[in-house]
Amino acid sequence: MSLACIIHGALDLRLEDETARELGPHDVLLRLGAGGICGSDLHYYKEGRVGAFVVREPLVPGHEASGIVDTVGSAVTRVKPGQKVAINPSHPCGTCDYCRAGRGNLCRHMFFLGSASVFPHAQGMFRERFVMGEAQLTPITEAAISLGEIACAEPLSIGLHAVNRAGSVLGETVLVTGGGTIGCMAVMSARLAGAAHVIVCDINDRALEMARTVGADRTIRTDQVAPEELADLAEVSLECAGSPAALNTCLKATRRGGRIVQVGTMPPELSFPANSIMVRELDYRGAFRAHLEFDWAVQAIRSRRVDVRPLISAQLPLSRSKDAFELALDRTRSTKVQLVAE
Amino acid sequence: MSLACIIHGALDLRLEDETARELGPHDVLLRLGAGGICGSDLHYYKEGRVGAFVVREPLVPGHEASGIVDTVGSAVTRVKPGQKVAINPSHPCGTCDYCRAGRGNLCRHMFFLGSASVFPHAQGMFRERFVMGEAQLTPITEAAISLGEIACAEPLSIGLHAVNRAGSVLGETVLVTGGGTIGCMAVMSARLAGAAHVIVCDINDRALEMARTVGADRTIRTDQVAPEELADLAEVSLECAGSPAALNTCLKATRRGGRIVQVGTMPPELSFPANSIMVRELDYRGAFRAHLEFDWAVQAIRSRRVDVRPLISAQLPLSRSKDAFELALDRTRSTKVQLVAE
Amino acid sequence: MSLACIIHGALDLRLEDETARELGPHDVLLRLGAGGICGSDLHYYKEGRVGAFVVREPLVPGHEASGIVDTVGSAVTRVKPGQKVAINPSHPCGTCDYCRAGRGNLCRHMFFLGSASVFPHAQGMFRERFVMGEAQLTPITEAAISLGEIACAEPLSIGLHAVNRAGSVLGETVLVTGGGTIGCMAVMSARLAGAAHVIVCDINDRALEMARTVGADRTIRTDQVAPEELADLAEVSLECAGSPAALNTCLKATRRGGRIVQVGTMPPELSFPANSIMVRELDYRGAFRAHLEFDWAVQAIRSRRVDVRPLISAQLPLSRSKDAFELALDRTRSTKVQLVAE
Amino acid sequence: MSLACIIHGALDLRLEDETARELGPHDVLLRLGAGGICGSDLHYYKEGRVGAFVVREPLVPGHEASGIVDTVGSAVTRVKPGQKVAINPSHPCGTCDYCRAGRGNLCRHMFFLGSASVFPHAQGMFRERFVMGEAQLTPITEAAISLGEIACAEPLSIGLHAVNRAGSVLGETVLVTGGGTIGCMAVMSARLAGAAHVIVCDINDRALEMARTVGADRTIRTDQVAPEELADLAEVSLECAGSPAALNTCLKATRRGGRIVQVGTMPPELSFPANSIMVRELDYRGAFRAHLEFDWAVQAIRSRRVDVRPLISAQLPLSRSKDAFELALDRTRSTKVQLVAE
Repeated sequence: MSLACIIHGALDLRLEDETARELGPHDVLLRLGAGGICGSDLHYYKEGRVGAFVVREPLVPGHEASGIVDTVGSAVTRVKPGQKVAINPSHPCGTCDYCRAGRGNLCRHMFFLGSASVFPHAQGMFRERFVMGEAQLTPITEAAISLGEIACAEPLSIGLHAVNRAGSVLGETVLVTGGGTIGCMAVMSARLAGAAHVIVCDINDRALEMARTVGADRTIRTDQVAPEELADLAEVSLECAGSPAALNTCLKATRRGGRIVQVGTMPPELSFPANSIMVRELDYRGAFRAHLEFDWAVQAIRSRRVDVRPLISAQLPLSRSKDAFELALDRTRSTKVQLVAE
Repeated sequence: MSLACIIHGALDLRLEDETARELGPHDVLLRLGAGGICGSDLHYYKEGRVGAFVVREPLVPGHEASGIVDTVGSAVTRVKPGQKVAINPSHPCGTCDYCRAGRGNLCRHMFFLGSASVFPHAQGMFRERFVMGEAQLTPITEAAISLGEIACAEPLSIGLHAVNRAGSVLGETVLVTGGGTIGCMAVMSARLAGAAHVIVCDINDRALEMARTVGADRTIRTDQVAPEELADLAEVSLECAGSPAALNTCLKATRRGGRIVQVGTMPPELSFPANSIMVRELDYRGAFRAHLEFDWAVQAIRSRRVDVRPLISAQLPLSRSKDAFELALDRTRSTKVQLVAE
Repeated sequence: MSLACIIHGALDLRLEDETARELGPHDVLLRLGAGGICGSDLHYYKEGRVGAFVVREPLVPGHEASGIVDTVGSAVTRVKPGQKVAINPSHPCGTCDYCRAGRGNLCRHMFFLGSASVFPHAQGMFRERFVMGEAQLTPITEAAISLGEIACAEPLSIGLHAVNRAGSVLGETVLVTGGGTIGCMAVMSARLAGAAHVIVCDINDRALEMARTVGADRTIRTDQVAPEELADLAEVSLECAGSPAALNTCLKATRRGGRIVQVGTMPPELSFPANSIMVRELDYRGAFRAHLEFDWAVQAIRSRRVDVRPLISAQLPLSRSKDAFELALDRTRSTKVQLVAE
Repeated sequence: MSLACIIHGALDLRLEDETARELGPHDVLLRLGAGGICGSDLHYYKEGRVGAFVVREPLVPGHEASGIVDTVGSAVTRVKPGQKVAINPSHPCGTCDYCRAGRGNLCRHMFFLGSASVFPHAQGMFRERFVMGEAQLTPITEAAISLGEIACAEPLSIGLHAVNRAGSVLGETVLVTGGGTIGCMAVMSARLAGAAHVIVCDINDRALEMARTVGADRTIRTDQVAPEELADLAEVSLECAGSPAALNTCLKATRRGGRIVQVGTMPPELSFPANSIMVRELDYRGAFRAHLEFDWAVQAIRSRRVDVRPLISAQLPLSRSKDAFELALDRTRSTKVQLVAE
């Protein structure tokens, strides 16, 4: 028997015992390494939904996890029992028009772990043991790289995808709005991609301090500066705060001909100066999940070219899932909170 | 002496005599061929301003014109007296960061004919005679191509720039919102660039008929269809109507991962579903004026690969400028109205 | 029983009877519509190999074919008996790194019909009846579009892929070396994509006449002009002749900063001015088969935006396969030769 | 009076006194900070020419230099006497078709310091004092950054341009052939741009050691490995050795669909497997000088995001120019040799 953290509806998170399913020839039974709580997990927890995706049956959340190989199926070649592994939560179909065009993250038949976007739901990884196809796994052989760091590959892939969507930032100034986990991942991604300056805006001092720790050259309390000081700061803005005020900062701060990438989740409608898109010839681009960037993230973490350790605020055992979710909800006390095995 | 159409303020358009300036060695004295009235000219006429650009001294409008060479400066080599010429109204500086990066249309020191964006204003071409540097001129040696067609090179360049901003549309479906002059130029540009299907939306039957005439495969009265019929129609949408409703059509009609190009002038603020930019990973891009596309437009017109003749609704002499502006304001009666010499 | 054209080795082409395999639920039994003989088919016929791909068991050639639906498997939804269909000969795996990156034509596990690149060989379509998965089929409902035209979708996709590899050619001058089938497909593709001028070079008058028929603005007998007349003609060159002399023409004719796309098959080694790649900052890009462009080609043919009819020189019945191959080998008498059912 | 190093022909390098020209209002009189000897300077010295560019009048070489502001013209605002400055040796015209398209390094009317590509020659910076327009200068206010480092901005810009020509290398493996100055600049540029692995090939141990010092993850003595060990190593190869053998390494080592950038100067003709460009769908791209990357290089050096100090092997006074050129010719003893004021 194995413990699982299961959301039955808004604020109805339970710990339950379950039995892992049989292994097929290409399957691997994993023990949880570490599992990061993401913003979407928090939405499921608090509201029983993320936007249009509503919890309609018990859902195990969790899509940012590392594991330890327990048992392998008969045909498995990529991993061996005892190995630490990074786990790609994304299963695009490989045959739809989006997949064929190289945009697997937009797959028409996407199966993404820990998500109510399909029914039956795609059950996630906040559980003691779970089965995964070997194609989703990358063994991490470096002894010094912790299970917590490996679990950060997925959120780092979000930052890398955002930068990738912006196009080359080599030599450019990049503004990041929001110094939470994703904002910080975006800072490190922009830095990795050769941005000359990285500026971070937030209204929370802890977030700005974290941003500096992970590589921001300059931080701005947007609630404490005159609007004109924000004008024309950057060629590229990465909106990671998910607030209309932050998007306005991006629109003001991005130079003519620049790019704004929307990473944060926005309210359904907001007031928007569409004319400035035209007159200033801006590119306003969405970034949804990640695709090839997952492998880049794994590589950056295992080589420590990106050091995610400062972002991991706390690790709590699965049995304290509820405490972990509550801690993750409080951004004055935490950046990334992870669940770990007992 | 030579006649000029001069705007002194809102609804204050006067015809006045003027003397053309001296010719420098690289200058050319031109007689007006044809000069198209553009939406921005209409804004100067009606409101004495275009957005932030206010008429602060008498302004000769007109940036879409062809000419006939009258006299040439001592060092001129590109054109000869008597030749028809296309006239590029755009004078980027060539040395600012935008110019060096190949985005001359965003030049920090842009001098654009017929515009109050600088002071003293950049005087335009609705006048009998005017002087132009030879670098702005392309002689048109094809006898069959009329002065009216040549004057359409500038608005066609706007359509081509919009398509160029969308990236390759080869094999794709393109939606154009708005069947006015710019919308029709966008239709012809998308067609030229190899779009497989071109769909045009408008709420005006005359505009939709014109769109079909210039190459639209399908037209939609957006006020007469259910919203769900607009879903996922196109990979690319070119917003040429300048209305929030049209932008909403684009947002609904553009498939995941697609591009929307803003060409029309929008109200300062509108309600906008920013989250769909993220979740559907759209690219929302501005298109402002044109750059290298002016030369492409000249070439497409002189070879009749693009046939702009159906768009020219009427040609009136300069002395009837006011009538011409009033006709141009009524889109149930006109598409492109041009001023010509007596 | 059903007739098939089978290559057993160099110059050993036989007609044999065979039995079509059982239909799976997603399979479709097709009757041959028309099947074009391609340069690689000719290499298999003459030499028993195409470069490194050697005929090691009897091979049915043929990858450019249209069909008529005979019988459908139990789960088939895309096509109905009696329909004409275009057939995509390319089966990428959908899961390798190239497929995930949107470059299915480079798939590590490619199964491409009528090819000895894998063993057992991928049997092709020069046969009376054959079975195909429905995913490879596009029904063509336009009565006016012939089976011969539909069979040209594959070679047209090669031309479109070449243009696509060149990037946007809108407004540019494109040079095509070689006026054979692929060169002519490249001409029509460049034209479709908005090239302002298309120039074709060859040393064969029949080829140049065909090139003009399908849209070349200018043709050059490269053996009859001085080399300096070829200098700096085009922004983009599409090398479709497969000869070192033609590549030299491209290198001379492409302007600084331009692109050269290699489509033709070259000898293993040739003398090459690599320094001009650097000093003139050229891009020399390969184009191998096609990917998404197959669907574009089908669409262009069914709408007659591209009219391939002039290229079809002759259609011979399957029983005269040998005559058809011999005719196809003689480019002074033929462009595209197709095999058809009796 | 002021000392200058002047090349009169092959192996005819002289030290001569000269008088600096008058200052115009936007001009600045500079004292030499440090001036790096580049491969092209060595060609002028040894052969009196670089390829087609022949020394036809006395030529002051030197295009990689830093300076100290001595006196400024009446209208100068960017720099002040006493400041250290980076000097951009490239003067594109700003108005030709290449400049307008954002490719200033290909300018038709390029004036590039220290070069015989124009006549009268563009005199360079290996001299005690020289005059420069202020637009070419960037003041370096960081006290810790040496004049020698600042002089490395130009060669670093070559490495950055090479990487920029390759497109985004984020997450990819990059191979660099040649561990000389430009190869090492390419290594640091690829690293800066987020390459996951950088591999360097050379046949000289000193070069490979230097490459490791500046960031190569792996180095290969290409003369000591079996050819098959080089297969499919990298997505991107940067050819910085200028030898046909190195280009062959790149062609072998670059994966299907990858990019090869030619930076080194090649012999006029070499044997080349053009077919592999097609079958493996490679992109073989030239990189000539640099454009916007000069400013990126200045920024990377002043922030020490790129640390060029290990590359500076020796600094000799102008009066020992000949010794400096001889030392620079011997790559077993030096990487970058610089001339400095007495």
